[in-house]
Amino acid sequence: MKICRGSECLKVELVAFTCTLESAEGISGPEKVVAESAAISHAPEFREMKVERARKLINLLRELGHESVFEHAYFTFRVEGISRACSHQLVRHRMASYTQQSQRYVNLREPTFIVPDSIANSGFAGEYEELLKRAASLYARMVESGAVKKEDARFALPQAVETKIVITMNARSLRNFFRLRCAPDAQWEIRALAMAMLREAYRVAPMLFEDLYREYAVGND
Amino acid sequence: MKICRGSECLKVELVAFTCTLESAEGISGPEKVVAESAAISHAPEFREMKVERARKLINLLRELGHESVFEHAYFTFRVEGISRACSHQLVRHRMASYTQQSQRYVNLREPTFIVPDSIANSGFAGEYEELLKRAASLYARMVESGAVKKEDARFALPQAVETKIVITMNARSLRNFFRLRCAPDAQWEIRALAMAMLREAYRVAPMLFEDLYREYAVGND
Amino acid sequence: MKICRGSECLKVELVAFTCTLESAEGISGPEKVVAESAAISHAPEFREMKVERARKLINLLRELGHESVFEHAYFTFRVEGISRACSHQLVRHRMASYTQQSQRYVNLREPTFIVPDSIANSGFAGEYEELLKRAASLYARMVESGAVKKEDARFALPQAVETKIVITMNARSLRNFFRLRCAPDAQWEIRALAMAMLREAYRVAPMLFEDLYREYAVGND
Amino acid sequence: MKICRGSECLKVELVAFTCTLESAEGISGPEKVVAESAAISHAPEFREMKVERARKLINLLRELGHESVFEHAYFTFRVEGISRACSHQLVRHRMASYTQQSQRYVNLREPTFIVPDSIANSGFAGEYEELLKRAASLYARMVESGAVKKEDARFALPQAVETKIVITMNARSLRNFFRLRCAPDAQWEIRALAMAMLREAYRVAPMLFEDLYREYAVGND
Repeated sequence: MKICRGSECLKVELVAFTCTLESAEGISGPEKVVAESAAISHAPEFREMKVERARKLINLLRELGHESVFEHAYFTFRVEGISRACSHQLVRHRMASYTQQSQRYVNLREPTFIVPDSIANSGFAGEYEELLKRAASLYARMVESGAVKKEDARFALPQAVETKIVITMNARSLRNFFRLRCAPDAQWEIRALAMAMLREAYRVAPMLFEDLYREYAVGND
Repeated sequence: MKICRGSECLKVELVAFTCTLESAEGISGPEKVVAESAAISHAPEFREMKVERARKLINLLRELGHESVFEHAYFTFRVEGISRACSHQLVRHRMASYTQQSQRYVNLREPTFIVPDSIANSGFAGEYEELLKRAASLYARMVESGAVKKEDARFALPQAVETKIVITMNARSLRNFFRLRCAPDAQWEIRALAMAMLREAYRVAPMLFEDLYREYAVGND
Repeated sequence: MKICRGSECLKVELVAFTCTLESAEGISGPEKVVAESAAISHAPEFREMKVERARKLINLLRELGHESVFEHAYFTFRVEGISRACSHQLVRHRMASYTQQSQRYVNLREPTFIVPDSIANSGFAGEYEELLKRAASLYARMVESGAVKKEDARFALPQAVETKIVITMNARSLRNFFRLRCAPDAQWEIRALAMAMLREAYRVAPMLFEDLYREYAVGND
Repeated sequence: MKICRGSECLKVELVAFTCTLESAEGISGPEKVVAESAAISHAPEFREMKVERARKLINLLRELGHESVFEHAYFTFRVEGISRACSHQLVRHRMASYTQQSQRYVNLREPTFIVPDSIANSGFAGEYEELLKRAASLYARMVESGAVKKEDARFALPQAVETKIVITMNARSLRNFFRLRCAPDAQWEIRALAMAMLREAYRVAPMLFEDLYREYAVGND
């Protein structure tokens, strides 16, 4: 059994994103596909994209709220170290594709659990850990006995139990997700996840996310 | 604290569905909106719908796999007595709308928990209940103390904890859901939910679901 | 051949919407399903809905931008008298279900065409009608000859040709549609369609649309 | 004015697709993201992907109909040389993102039109071309006059008029699209489009499409 405090075990890895077959200096794949798609709508002859023109165009799209072209840019994240409480919240965002570690098939013999800071800092920390230990032990013995399948044994696991998930979202959907989940009033765990995703996405496609990055991430690094 | 064995506390109530402004004898609202929409596509003069003609047309659509017109008929269910393990699986079906009891806002002082039959029938039943009791007690004391918010205290609750949810799906999406989740290899809890939803939907719109009802529900009543 | 000027032939009929199995005085089905769904999220004991409480709750949801519960209320419209230019624009709204008159199966021997006011008021009106007449005549003769199928003959028909379509949208999607398409800078034909849909939806579910109705429709009746 | 017979002007260019940050010999980005996502669900330790293992895993997923992991792989196509009749059909596929040349903003002074083979081979070919010429001429003069905006002038253009569109779909959605639109009974123009897209997608991600490629494309090259 492993205990992670807050989001200390959170691991967000950008594993894939949109590449264009032709590249343009200073413009990444996600940026290029957005800028070129915007151009087809209004300017038929447009193909050669220079970095300054792309930046201006994308800024304009953001200001006008013309976000539909942002749907052409895709990002895939591999996430570890979040609780099932968090993943349940996450998958309510339907404009996305998810593949999650299955509790029907994966044996959680050595489970990892998340401890919210508020519990860790309270007088209940010891009792909470004791509860996790008992749950992990009961789970393991039920599965080993052969009498209870993994899919039923998981009913004993607290919602603190860690899960792993692959998330694919397009830039429009991500921007909506960031606005909702990077906001200061968001629940702490999904906020930490959203902030980490924003940093990763910004790193490879700054033109698509710089307004949100400046609003939420700068100074919180 | 309340313990429910298997799906004995499952309550599925059809609270709303599509009504048409004009009614036709022997044809319910969901059936009528599907049949009339199909007619607009191929037969412009078509308006008066008789029951036998509607039945034939809908049978034909099902046989040809022309399920897109089934999207015009909507059903809303209010569900109680399922675990958060089950609701997490459920909300992965994205062609639907959900409103779920919030564990951030609702105080689960008197929680209900689901016990899978396999645990209830095993030698672990006592230890499992004991774990639920400890979890419920810890949750209650953490919330009362004021030091831990409900959204953090829920980390201690096992995935067996009951949730309530409102589900709206159209008939096409429901048919897909039933095919996946009424099948014999589906996990028992979501299967019980799907079977109950199928019975409710069939009751008000038999023409839209009779093939699936015959395949999955007859003999299992 | 029939010519319709502007949106004079536009016919928008609300044919179906959400009914609840239990009714409540002064609250329509779409309003009730939204208010009750909102209540499940925060207030478990809540069932009895009085009209003033429902109105307050729905106003609050709109102000807070909590629009997800609006997804439980559905509306189905039968639309006639719009051009294929308009329907092409319309079906780009993906959060909806459509069934459209098929130009592969329906013979448009007696087509209806839409004439934009700007053309009707210009010196080109005669030439435009002449073009429509030639197109209709060529279409009819190609289909009658047996050498050209309807699906190919339609290539000759101007985009002004009328189509019929059934649209089902939930209240959240409708609200988004109205904000985009009732706005003064929207293209005139889809705007006339959106205004007519707003009036119909407002008539049966005023609580869900009164802000938009006041903003766009009052004074334009 | 330019006339294209059948799909002779059809141009389908794959402009972007999913790249993974780490590459694996013999496995393309779209294949890798699918295989790795499938692995997270069942095998937590799994990371190193060899080509034969990936192929086997993907074959298995296809056979079992576990297509949800195919959603992580994205493809963007730039399409030219299709009629607005075809694009209207295309955009009804809602599990996709589209950016289309706007007839509100782009001046179609030099329009291209599609001629179905059946018309070209019939006695109506001359009259059809004559109609297109008149329509193009009327469109141009109406726009030049300043009295009629482009968005209204387009009502005069036959549905044969060419459009350009950028399409982004994931591999699951593409597979569904190919099954419907590469089938022999599909309408010829959208079928030619689907076949060209299948060839492009197969070229960069053969593991994801080889069953459909063998069924529809081999022998039709």
